[in-house]
Amino acid sequence: MTDFMKLAKDEAVRGVSENHGGPFGALVVQGDRIVASAHNEVVHTNDPTAHAEILAIRRASRELGRFDLSDCVLYTSCEPCPMCLFAVYWSRIKTVYYGCTRTDAKGIGFDDEFLYEVMNGTASENRVELVNLGREACLDAFTVWLNKDDKVPY
Amino acid sequence: MTDFMKLAKDEAVRGVSENHGGPFGALVVQGDRIVASAHNEVVHTNDPTAHAEILAIRRASRELGRFDLSDCVLYTSCEPCPMCLFAVYWSRIKTVYYGCTRTDAKGIGFDDEFLYEVMNGTASENRVELVNLGREACLDAFTVWLNKDDKVPY
Repeated sequence: MTDFMKLAKDEAVRGVSENHGGPFGALVVQGDRIVASAHNEVVHTNDPTAHAEILAIRRASRELGRFDLSDCVLYTSCEPCPMCLFAVYWSRIKTVYYGCTRTDAKGIGFDDEFLYEVMNGTASENRVELVNLGREACLDAFTVWLNKDDKVPY
Repeated sequence: MTDFMKLAKDEAVRGVSENHGGPFGALVVQGDRIVASAHNEVVHTNDPTAHAEILAIRRASRELGRFDLSDCVLYTSCEPCPMCLFAVYWSRIKTVYYGCTRTDAKGIGFDDEFLYEVMNGTASENRVELVNLGREACLDAFTVWLNKDDKVPY
Protein backbone atom coordinates (compact mmCIF):
# COMPACT_ATOMS: atom_id res chain seq x y z
CA MET A 1 0.00 0.00 0.00
CA THR A 2 2.77 2.40 0.96
CA ASP A 3 4.46 1.91 -2.42
CA PHE A 4 1.31 3.01 -4.23
CA MET A 5 1.12 6.10 -2.03
CA LYS A 6 4.73 6.92 -2.85
CA LEU A 7 3.86 6.67 -6.55
CA ALA A 8 0.91 9.02 -6.01
CA LYS A 9 3.30 11.49 -4.37
CA ASP A 10 5.77 11.09 -7.27
CA GLU A 11 2.92 11.84 -9.68
CA ALA A 12 2.15 15.00 -7.66
CA VAL A 13 5.76 16.14 -7.89
CA ARG A 14 5.79 15.43 -11.64
CA GLY A 15 2.74 17.64 -12.13
CA VAL A 16 4.43 20.52 -10.33
CA SER A 17 7.64 20.06 -12.34
CA GLU A 18 5.65 20.15 -15.57
CA ASN A 19 3.71 23.28 -14.51
CA HIS A 20 0.41 21.41 -14.88
CA GLY A 21 -1.18 22.54 -11.62
CA GLY A 22 -1.14 21.99 -7.87
CA PRO A 23 0.89 19.32 -6.03
CA PHE A 24 -1.65 16.52 -6.13
CA GLY A 25 -1.36 13.01 -7.57
CA ALA A 26 -3.68 10.00 -7.61
CA LEU A 27 -3.72 6.36 -8.69
CA VAL A 28 -6.59 3.95 -9.33
CA VAL A 29 -5.43 0.47 -8.34
CA GLN A 30 -7.09 -2.88 -9.00
CA GLY A 31 -5.49 -5.61 -6.89
CA ASP A 32 -1.75 -5.19 -7.52
CA ARG A 33 -2.20 -3.36 -10.81
CA ILE A 34 -2.14 0.39 -11.42
CA VAL A 35 -5.06 1.01 -13.77
CA ALA A 36 -4.55 4.76 -14.11
CA SER A 37 -2.50 7.57 -12.64
CA ALA A 38 -2.90 11.32 -12.89
CA HIS A 39 -1.80 14.61 -11.44
CA ASN A 40 -3.64 17.89 -11.14
CA GLU A 41 -3.93 19.61 -14.54
CA VAL A 42 -6.09 22.64 -13.72
CA VAL A 43 -3.51 25.12 -15.02
CA HIS A 44 -2.35 23.02 -17.98
CA THR A 45 -5.85 22.36 -19.32
CA ASN A 46 -7.66 25.45 -17.91
CA ASP A 47 -10.22 22.98 -16.56
CA PRO A 48 -11.26 23.69 -12.95
CA THR A 49 -12.46 20.07 -12.61
CA ALA A 50 -9.10 18.57 -13.67
CA HIS A 51 -8.15 17.41 -10.18
CA ALA A 52 -5.88 14.36 -9.90
CA GLU A 53 -8.64 12.12 -8.55
CA ILE A 54 -11.16 13.09 -11.26
CA LEU A 55 -8.59 12.50 -13.99
CA ALA A 56 -7.48 9.17 -12.49
CA ILE A 57 -11.10 7.97 -12.28
CA ARG A 58 -11.79 9.16 -15.83
CA ARG A 59 -8.71 7.37 -17.19
CA ALA A 60 -9.39 4.20 -15.21
CA SER A 61 -12.96 3.96 -16.48
CA ARG A 62 -11.71 4.45 -20.03
CA GLU A 63 -9.00 1.80 -19.49
CA LEU A 64 -11.47 -0.72 -18.05
CA GLY A 65 -14.32 0.23 -20.39
CA ARG A 66 -16.86 0.63 -17.60
CA PHE A 67 -18.14 3.32 -15.25
CA ASP A 68 -18.29 0.94 -12.26
CA LEU A 69 -14.92 0.84 -10.53
CA SER A 70 -16.14 -0.99 -7.42
CA ASP A 71 -13.26 -3.49 -7.68
CA CYS A 72 -10.67 -0.68 -7.47
CA VAL A 73 -9.25 1.53 -4.74
CA LEU A 74 -7.93 5.08 -4.95
CA TYR A 75 -4.60 6.35 -3.66
CA THR A 76 -4.33 10.12 -3.52
CA SER A 77 -1.47 12.20 -2.19
CA CYS A 78 -3.93 14.54 -0.43
CA GLU A 79 -7.38 14.16 1.11
CA PRO A 80 -9.92 14.56 -1.72
CA CYS A 81 -11.88 17.80 -1.95
CA PRO A 82 -15.69 17.36 -1.79
CA MET A 83 -15.98 17.36 -5.61
CA CYS A 84 -13.54 14.47 -5.83
CA LEU A 85 -15.08 12.68 -2.84
CA PHE A 86 -18.43 12.61 -4.61
CA ALA A 87 -16.76 11.54 -7.85
CA VAL A 88 -15.50 8.56 -5.81
CA TYR A 89 -19.09 7.82 -4.78
CA TRP A 90 -20.23 7.86 -8.41
CA SER A 91 -17.33 5.59 -9.41
CA ARG A 92 -18.35 3.12 -6.67
CA ILE A 93 -14.78 2.93 -5.40
CA LYS A 94 -15.12 1.89 -1.76
CA THR A 95 -11.73 2.70 -0.24
CA VAL A 96 -9.64 5.85 -0.53
CA TYR A 97 -6.10 6.07 0.87
CA TYR A 98 -4.95 9.67 1.25
CA GLY A 99 -1.63 11.22 2.35
CA CYS A 100 -1.77 14.94 3.26
CA THR A 101 -4.88 16.29 4.96
CA ARG A 102 -7.30 19.09 4.06
CA THR A 103 -5.58 21.21 6.73
CA ASP A 104 -2.20 20.63 5.08
CA ALA A 105 -3.76 21.74 1.77
CA LYS A 106 -5.11 24.91 3.37
CA GLY A 107 -1.61 25.58 4.70
CA ILE A 108 -0.25 25.89 1.15
CA GLY A 109 -3.17 28.01 -0.11
CA PHE A 110 -5.77 25.54 -1.41
CA ASP A 111 -9.35 26.16 -0.46
CA ASP A 112 -10.51 22.62 0.17
CA GLU A 113 -11.33 23.33 3.79
CA PHE A 114 -13.82 26.05 2.80
CA LEU A 115 -15.58 23.52 0.55
CA TYR A 116 -15.72 21.09 3.47
CA GLU A 117 -17.32 23.88 5.54
CA VAL A 118 -19.93 24.29 2.79
CA MET A 119 -20.46 20.53 2.91
CA ASN A 120 -20.82 20.53 6.69
CA GLY A 121 -23.11 23.57 6.74
CA THR A 122 -20.63 25.67 8.73
CA ALA A 123 -19.41 27.99 5.95
CA SER A 124 -19.55 31.67 6.87
CA GLU A 125 -20.57 32.80 3.39
CA ASN A 126 -22.69 31.57 0.50
CA ARG A 127 -20.71 31.84 -2.73
CA VAL A 128 -23.18 30.04 -5.03
CA GLU A 129 -26.83 30.97 -5.43
CA LEU A 130 -29.17 28.17 -6.54
CA VAL A 131 -32.39 29.24 -8.26
CA ASN A 132 -35.18 26.86 -9.20
CA LEU A 133 -36.61 27.68 -12.64
CA GLY A 134 -38.74 25.94 -15.27
CA ARG A 135 -39.23 22.67 -13.39
CA GLU A 136 -42.37 21.68 -15.28
CA ALA A 137 -40.68 21.99 -18.67
CA CYS A 138 -37.62 20.09 -17.49
CA LEU A 139 -39.73 17.21 -16.19
CA ASP A 140 -40.47 16.47 -19.87
CA ALA A 141 -36.92 15.15 -20.22
CA PHE A 142 -37.54 12.76 -17.33
CA THR A 143 -40.70 11.51 -19.05
CA VAL A 144 -38.70 10.83 -22.22
CA TRP A 145 -36.25 8.81 -20.09
CA LEU A 146 -39.01 6.86 -18.33
CA ASN A 147 -40.64 5.96 -21.63
CA LYS A 148 -37.37 4.83 -23.25
CA ASP A 149 -37.28 1.05 -23.57
CA ASP A 150 -33.58 0.54 -24.28
CA LYS A 151 -32.06 2.79 -21.61
CA VAL A 152 -28.91 1.78 -19.70
CA PRO A 153 -29.41 2.49 -15.98
CA TYR A 154 -26.34 3.56 -13.97
CA MET B 1 -33.55 33.03 -18.68
CA THR B 2 -36.38 30.65 -19.42
CA ASP B 3 -35.16 30.18 -23.00
CA PHE B 4 -31.78 29.01 -21.74
CA MET B 5 -33.50 26.55 -19.43
CA LYS B 6 -35.54 25.21 -22.34
CA LEU B 7 -32.30 24.68 -24.27
CA ALA B 8 -30.82 22.82 -21.27
CA LYS B 9 -33.89 20.58 -21.31
CA ASP B 10 -33.56 20.04 -25.08
CA GLU B 11 -29.93 19.05 -24.51
CA ALA B 12 -31.10 16.53 -21.88
CA VAL B 13 -33.59 15.01 -24.32
CA ARG B 14 -30.92 14.84 -27.02
CA GLY B 15 -28.63 12.89 -24.69
CA VAL B 16 -31.37 10.35 -24.01
CA SER B 17 -32.15 10.02 -27.71
CA GLU B 18 -28.49 9.38 -28.48
CA ASN B 19 -28.16 6.80 -25.67
CA HIS B 20 -25.42 8.84 -24.05
CA GLY B 21 -26.71 8.65 -20.47
CA GLY B 22 -29.34 10.04 -18.11
CA PRO B 23 -31.80 12.85 -18.91
CA PHE B 24 -29.65 15.77 -17.85
CA GLY B 25 -28.51 18.81 -19.82
CA ALA B 26 -26.57 21.95 -18.91
CA LEU B 27 -25.41 25.23 -20.43
CA VAL B 28 -22.72 27.70 -19.40
CA VAL B 29 -23.90 31.18 -20.35
CA GLN B 30 -21.95 34.44 -20.40
CA GLY B 31 -24.30 37.41 -20.73
CA ASP B 32 -26.52 36.49 -23.68
CA ARG B 33 -24.07 34.01 -25.17
CA ILE B 34 -24.03 30.23 -24.75
CA VAL B 35 -20.38 29.38 -24.13
CA ALA B 36 -20.87 25.62 -23.86
CA SER B 37 -23.61 23.04 -23.66
CA ALA B 38 -23.52 19.39 -22.70
CA HIS B 39 -25.62 16.43 -21.74
CA ASN B 40 -24.86 13.50 -19.48
CA GLU B 41 -22.42 11.08 -21.17
CA VAL B 42 -21.79 8.54 -18.40
CA VAL B 43 -22.93 5.61 -20.52
CA HIS B 44 -21.45 6.84 -23.81
CA THR B 45 -17.97 7.51 -22.40
CA ASN B 46 -17.98 5.02 -19.47
CA ASP B 47 -16.91 7.97 -17.33
CA PRO B 48 -18.79 8.21 -13.99
CA THR B 49 -17.85 11.90 -13.75
CA ALA B 50 -19.32 12.78 -17.18
CA HIS B 51 -22.32 14.62 -15.77
CA ALA B 52 -23.81 17.42 -17.87
CA GLU B 53 -22.61 20.17 -15.54
CA ILE B 54 -19.02 18.85 -15.37
CA LEU B 55 -18.85 18.55 -19.16
CA ALA B 56 -20.37 22.02 -19.69
CA ILE B 57 -17.85 23.57 -17.27
CA ARG B 58 -14.98 21.68 -18.89
CA ARG B 59 -16.02 22.79 -22.38
CA ALA B 60 -16.63 26.38 -21.30
CA SER B 61 -13.20 26.68 -19.70
CA ARG B 62 -11.62 25.26 -22.86
CA GLU B 63 -13.65 27.68 -25.00
CA LEU B 64 -12.69 30.70 -22.89
CA GLY B 65 -9.13 29.53 -22.24
CA ARG B 66 -9.35 30.02 -18.47
CA PHE B 67 -10.37 28.08 -15.38
CA ASP B 68 -12.13 31.08 -13.81
CA LEU B 69 -15.74 31.24 -15.04
CA SER B 70 -16.88 33.85 -12.52
CA ASP B 71 -18.49 35.92 -15.30
CA CYS B 72 -20.71 33.01 -16.34
CA VAL B 73 -23.86 31.35 -14.99
CA LEU B 74 -24.97 27.73 -15.25
CA TYR B 75 -28.34 26.47 -16.44
CA THR B 76 -28.99 22.83 -15.66
CA SER B 77 -32.14 20.84 -16.31
CA CYS B 78 -31.87 19.23 -12.85
CA GLU B 79 -30.50 20.28 -9.49
CA PRO B 80 -26.76 19.50 -9.49
CA CYS B 81 -25.53 16.50 -7.52
CA PRO B 82 -22.93 17.33 -4.85
CA MET B 83 -20.03 16.47 -7.19
CA CYS B 84 -21.31 18.99 -9.73
CA LEU B 85 -22.17 21.55 -7.05
CA PHE B 86 -18.55 21.54 -5.89
CA ALA B 87 -17.33 21.68 -9.49
CA VAL B 88 -19.38 24.91 -9.69
CA TYR B 89 -17.51 26.21 -6.64
CA TRP B 90 -14.14 25.46 -8.25
CA SER B 91 -15.26 27.13 -11.50
CA ARG B 92 -16.25 30.27 -9.51
CA ILE B 93 -19.63 30.39 -11.22
CA LYS B 94 -21.86 32.26 -8.77
CA THR B 95 -25.39 31.49 -9.95
CA VAL B 96 -26.97 28.17 -10.90
CA TYR B 97 -30.46 27.92 -12.40
CA TYR B 98 -31.89 24.42 -12.14
CA GLY B 99 -35.14 22.84 -13.37
CA CYS B 100 -36.04 19.48 -11.80
CA THR B 101 -35.18 18.86 -8.16
CA ARG B 102 -33.11 16.18 -6.43
CA THR B 103 -36.41 14.58 -5.36
CA ASP B 104 -37.56 14.43 -8.98
CA ALA B 105 -34.24 12.73 -9.84
CA LYS B 106 -34.74 10.16 -7.10
CA GLY B 107 -38.19 9.50 -8.51
CA ILE B 108 -36.68 8.26 -11.77
CA GLY B 109 -33.95 6.18 -10.08
CA PHE B 110 -30.97 8.54 -9.70
CA ASP B 111 -29.16 8.50 -6.40
CA ASP B 112 -28.46 12.19 -5.97
CA GLU B 113 -30.50 12.42 -2.80
CA PHE B 114 -28.32 9.79 -1.09
CA LEU B 115 -25.27 11.90 -1.93
CA TYR B 116 -26.98 14.93 -0.43
CA GLU B 117 -27.58 12.87 2.72
CA VAL B 118 -23.85 12.09 2.80
CA MET B 119 -23.19 15.79 2.40
CA ASN B 120 -25.61 16.69 5.19
CA GLY B 121 -24.32 14.00 7.52
CA THR B 122 -27.68 12.17 7.61
CA ALA B 123 -26.79 9.16 5.41
CA SER B 124 -27.71 5.83 6.98
CA GLU B 125 -24.65 4.03 5.61
CA ASN B 126 -20.99 4.77 4.89
CA ARG B 127 -20.14 3.58 1.39
CA VAL B 128 -16.62 5.03 1.16
CA GLU B 129 -13.85 4.38 3.69
CA LEU B 130 -11.15 7.06 3.94
CA VAL B 131 -7.79 5.94 5.31
CA ASN B 132 -4.92 8.30 6.10
CA LEU B 133 -1.57 6.85 4.99
CA GLY B 134 1.94 8.14 4.33
CA ARG B 135 1.28 11.78 5.17
CA GLU B 136 4.92 12.61 5.90
CA ALA B 137 6.09 11.36 2.51
CA CYS B 138 3.29 13.19 0.70
CA LEU B 139 4.14 16.47 2.39
CA ASP B 140 7.33 16.42 0.29
CA ALA B 141 5.19 17.27 -2.76
CA PHE B 142 3.84 20.33 -0.93
CA THR B 143 7.39 21.44 -0.14
CA VAL B 144 8.29 21.17 -3.83
CA TRP B 145 5.27 23.37 -4.60
CA LEU B 146 6.15 25.94 -1.93
CA ASN B 147 9.72 26.20 -3.22
CA LYS B 148 8.66 26.61 -6.85
CA ASP B 149 9.19 30.20 -8.00
CA ASP B 150 7.12 30.17 -11.21
CA LYS B 151 3.96 28.44 -9.97
CA VAL B 152 0.51 29.57 -11.13
CA PRO B 153 -1.86 29.79 -8.12
CA TYR B 154 -5.52 28.92 -8.69
